[in-house]
Amino acid sequence: MTDKSDLPPFPSNPHLAELNPDKLYHIGYSTDDDLKQLFGDVKFVCMGGSTTRMANFAALVQKSLADVPGVRDAQSPCPPENISRSDRYVMYKIGPVLSVNHGMGFSSVSILLHEIIKLLYYAGCDDPVIIRIGTSGGIGIAPGTVVVTKQPFNAEIQPHHNVIVAGKVAQRESYMDEKTRKDIIACGQRLDDVSVVAGNTMSTDDFYEGQGRLDGAVCKTDLATKMAFLEQAKDKGVVNIEMECVVMGALCHASRVRCACVCVTLLNRLNGDQVNMTKEQHDRYQAHPQQVVIAYMRSVLTGEANGDEPSAKKSRL
Amino acid sequence: MTDKSDLPPFPSNPHLAELNPDKLYHIGYSTDDDLKQLFGDVKFVCMGGSTTRMANFAALVQKSLADVPGVRDAQSPCPPENISRSDRYVMYKIGPVLSVNHGMGFSSVSILLHEIIKLLYYAGCDDPVIIRIGTSGGIGIAPGTVVVTKQPFNAEIQPHHNVIVAGKVAQRESYMDEKTRKDIIACGQRLDDVSVVAGNTMSTDDFYEGQGRLDGAVCKTDLATKMAFLEQAKDKGVVNIEMECVVMGALCHASRVRCACVCVTLLNRLNGDQVNMTKEQHDRYQAHPQQVVIAYMRSVLTGEANGDEPSAKKSRL
Repeated sequence: MTDKSDLPPFPSNPHLAELNPDKLYHIGYSTDDDLKQLFGDVKFVCMGGSTTRMANFAALVQKSLADVPGVRDAQSPCPPENISRSDRYVMYKIGPVLSVNHGMGFSSVSILLHEIIKLLYYAGCDDPVIIRIGTSGGIGIAPGTVVVTKQPFNAEIQPHHNVIVAGKVAQRESYMDEKTRKDIIACGQRLDDVSVVAGNTMSTDDFYEGQGRLDGAVCKTDLATKMAFLEQAKDKGVVNIEMECVVMGALCHASRVRCACVCVTLLNRLNGDQVNMTKEQHDRYQAHPQQVVIAYMRSVLTGEANGDEPSAKKSRL
Repeated sequence: MTDKSDLPPFPSNPHLAELNPDKLYHIGYSTDDDLKQLFGDVKFVCMGGSTTRMANFAALVQKSLADVPGVRDAQSPCPPENISRSDRYVMYKIGPVLSVNHGMGFSSVSILLHEIIKLLYYAGCDDPVIIRIGTSGGIGIAPGTVVVTKQPFNAEIQPHHNVIVAGKVAQRESYMDEKTRKDIIACGQRLDDVSVVAGNTMSTDDFYEGQGRLDGAVCKTDLATKMAFLEQAKDKGVVNIEMECVVMGALCHASRVRCACVCVTLLNRLNGDQVNMTKEQHDRYQAHPQQVVIAYMRSVLTGEANGDEPSAKKSRL
């Protein structure tokens, strides 16, 4: 049972105070569990679309940060176990690091974030940060480049998120924490063989038509329209396209949780639609944002980043 | 290698003719595979959100239809194997039945459908039908009821789908095949202990705010607004809410593939937001639409439904 008596008011939903228990249905936990004991030490929620990638990332965190306080104390001779209590998502915990998958698209990442943000709140976590580690299509940059998002854009190339609340469209600000972005980029730039840039990210709720692809089962556009769309995005500083960032920026901003989006580009969309690469190349590219985020977490956990202060602007749930 | 020379023109995307190979990235197949040999006999694509549910459904099909032609010939002493070549979705094949998961929400089901519809086309399948077997929240009907969708509605309670194509919103008709719905309902009504109804289904791209829930991490609405929203949906004949149907109806209609949506309700949203039930009850309810769809597939495969004609209006890909 989670003791809610010493928690500050939940910032973005007053109704939660009346809810006892609160069931986090899609990850299988509830306030009937002792969430403070189970998750109170979490500082980083790292999330990506694929289940396998996040399992591998958990194992990589265990290995790469084995010497770091917090992670060291949580060491085990076995690979991290999936502690999600539902098959909708996987979840691994390595000391202060939670590695979860969010599936693909707005609603899948939204469900996970609603429940993870409540989990962090009930667990009383201190200034946690949520970092998406993903793959994306680039616009005008070389495949393999890691993009740390400045401003998320929606699929109409507008710098906000539209959400439908009980039947009515509402416009929400979508925001990435600036200090976190700069710290991540600084850590990434110290790595060999990884190119890290800051840029705007467009999120679409559709892989095919939403991103202007011509290779879906349904296509009602043409090459000229697609190229004009990509050029228009490029003119607004968009360097990559993926399917979750703008939602993360909106939900985290409303909930006063810091977040960042660190995605590798798998192709340059100005040259085509299909992802053509060997598995080895794909695995190598996919490792880039993971290496960057691990370097960032190391710097925070060892106090290298800012003395002992992980971020000037602390999250206040 | 798939021989494309004898295929009719693909109805909803002329660009595909130029694509060689066509990589179905998120399921891991391509036209470099012999898709006719691998999937040419598929008649039913059954899909649901959860990976476990669709694995269990595949095993249930293998067992329940063991005596039926097509399935009988494909019998194996082992449980069906996951033949997806990517970890984004699972996929099982039991003779003419494909059992796949689609994850949660518009974009996840959209990616799967774009690639499955192309797969069915390249494989030269004859009049296939795509059936969603899902869970949902009911409006004014008892939990455990199976709803077979008449008309899908979007989250603004409009009977169409809005998709953003290369930056611009486009409105698409969303359509469920009438004859298939009636056949499914007729088969379901012959089962004991399962209540099957026809009704309209609202699809939202969000589990919390989009469905008017008050229990998300972010909530900018109130009880009165939520109840008015649900009542307004009810007035339009909506009896359940889920997260994929309107997209399936739009993509399948545009691609000229028959589809149906068969969802059980887990709760009555007029009474609350949270899913409160034992695992046993949940498993029992979840089995209802599976039983209905298995009864329907049996009737089609044994020719009980309409002599030898599974549907008066054949899909023409």
